[in-house]
Amino acid sequence: MNSEIKPKPLAEAVLHALGRSQNPFLICHIDPDGDALGSLLGLGLALRKMGKNPTLVSPDGVPAIYDFLPGQEFLAKVPAVSRVTHEDLIVVLDSSDLKRISSYYDATLFASRPVANIDHHATNTLFGNINYVDTSAGACAEIVCNLLDGMHEEINPEIATCLLTGIFTDTLGFRTTSTTPQMLQLAARLVQHGAPLAGIAEKIDQRRSLVAIRLWTKILETLQLDGKIAWAQCDLAMRRSIGASEDESSGVLRTLTSVAEASVFALFTERSPGRIDVSLRSRPGYNVSKVAFRLGGGGHPQAAGCSLEGEMATIVPRVLSELRIVANNTPSPQGNMA
Amino acid sequence: MNSEIKPKPLAEAVLHALGRSQNPFLICHIDPDGDALGSLLGLGLALRKMGKNPTLVSPDGVPAIYDFLPGQEFLAKVPAVSRVTHEDLIVVLDSSDLKRISSYYDATLFASRPVANIDHHATNTLFGNINYVDTSAGACAEIVCNLLDGMHEEINPEIATCLLTGIFTDTLGFRTTSTTPQMLQLAARLVQHGAPLAGIAEKIDQRRSLVAIRLWTKILETLQLDGKIAWAQCDLAMRRSIGASEDESSGVLRTLTSVAEASVFALFTERSPGRIDVSLRSRPGYNVSKVAFRLGGGGHPQAAGCSLEGEMATIVPRVLSELRIVANNTPSPQGNMA
Repeated sequence: MNSEIKPKPLAEAVLHALGRSQNPFLICHIDPDGDALGSLLGLGLALRKMGKNPTLVSPDGVPAIYDFLPGQEFLAKVPAVSRVTHEDLIVVLDSSDLKRISSYYDATLFASRPVANIDHHATNTLFGNINYVDTSAGACAEIVCNLLDGMHEEINPEIATCLLTGIFTDTLGFRTTSTTPQMLQLAARLVQHGAPLAGIAEKIDQRRSLVAIRLWTKILETLQLDGKIAWAQCDLAMRRSIGASEDESSGVLRTLTSVAEASVFALFTERSPGRIDVSLRSRPGYNVSKVAFRLGGGGHPQAAGCSLEGEMATIVPRVLSELRIVANNTPSPQGNMA
Repeated sequence: MNSEIKPKPLAEAVLHALGRSQNPFLICHIDPDGDALGSLLGLGLALRKMGKNPTLVSPDGVPAIYDFLPGQEFLAKVPAVSRVTHEDLIVVLDSSDLKRISSYYDATLFASRPVANIDHHATNTLFGNINYVDTSAGACAEIVCNLLDGMHEEINPEIATCLLTGIFTDTLGFRTTSTTPQMLQLAARLVQHGAPLAGIAEKIDQRRSLVAIRLWTKILETLQLDGKIAWAQCDLAMRRSIGASEDESSGVLRTLTSVAEASVFALFTERSPGRIDVSLRSRPGYNVSKVAFRLGGGGHPQAAGCSLEGEMATIVPRVLSELRIVANNTPSPQGNMA
């Protein structure tokens, strides 16, 4: 292990810092998902159980879908950075950089206290004094679990529920290639410790607002197949007629990307007049990130996006003509099962 | 263990029978799902690897969604019961009774050879000479895996893929209450042995025909909320206008049952003129099976159904009035997370 070029993340340094801290300030990223909240609350509950007094901050609160997570009663209310006084350690969870904690980053404050950066994103900027960044982990909750093991801290049902929610969210319910045997074994352990897997799955996967489903229906009415490309659009007028918010369109991607006849998928969302967000997806073997980059966006081979100025009527054909090049390519070998 | 009233399933007897047999006849149930096929092919591949010569039969072949399963090249083509000659053991997989193998049940044939019944359904009629029925198993593939362990047979990537497909299908992708820690550990082991979990998930969950999605869109256009009941309908005319087959409507239930505002769900499908199939679903704590029973159908508390004679216009209000009684009840305690 010591001969590896890339050093092992410094679990010991984080363990030492957490061990010494009595009043840690824990924060996750804005627009939190289940892994951000699960990691924050799971670690927070464990530190409380150890007799510490952590301040827990979710800059954007708790979205309704995660209202079942234990420990959210301990989240700080309206916690302004200026109110950080007695906290002796800052712990940033699941955030690749400090922009992800938005206005909670304060240069003076962060210079005056040790900052522990606990994350699993490959793009992490190593902004902490202590960086425990394990890019082999499929979820930040997996890293938190390692920390709890390092502290010899027993996992109770509440902590197990938080951590399993993190794992479930980031693996899309054990469906990503990051779902390793270790991840499944950890999930088994968390269920053994009392995490209600079926309940978590039901809460996360099976609760959509009627408004969102009405919007998805409208979007799917526009679904078209262009060779191996399946695409659909969401106009402002469509959203307004239903009273749906900006973000309620994204969930339809799961249905759009299930069209068996297609390998490349695009959702065009009119964010505001003259501004179209383009979400691109593809099956393994087809790389949509190149198209996104060329159009000024970014992402991964199977999930990318960009935001373009113009009207739907001109942007759709422009993006489709780029996507046809991708869709008509013979898939690369990783397009197989493995 | 020996003091339990219910005896442990006789793994030893099945192991002994399989060990002695050189030419076993393996069959799964009609209208096969991933567990039926995964168990059949997984066991079949293992027996072939052991130098045996199994005849493998799926009465209804392999639905397109499972076209990735290894070993299907060994399935018998047009295998008539009359052609069963040299086979020295009949093994029936994942079938609660002999009706589930349809015309492949032949009284004379089944009386002339030992019949091993390998299953996990609580309703199994114990029709075999040897019954290895473990109702605590979440999938028949889990039982097959136990058998392979009992034979000290190594699980190769092909066998692992078949068995993980069985587990993934029957647990709805690790989402059911039958997803025990043992099940997750077994999944971890199968991934370790080379089963491509993400690939299996993508093939099973993310491939719907364009026609099916067009039908779902039409059905979701009819979605209505009646108190805590979300319901939708699928007319014959709707199916015909799209060219969709009878079974392509059922997948929409997953979206219908995700309406957060509802706890009870109903899908009315006009099977043929004057015949309406009613699919009922509910969140934990709400029991729809009683309504189904009262209307001449059956099922479980959270998933039940019936088939009624009459027109949509009269059947919908009749069923809704029954469902309102269920929906207005305070949920029972199991409605919580656990």
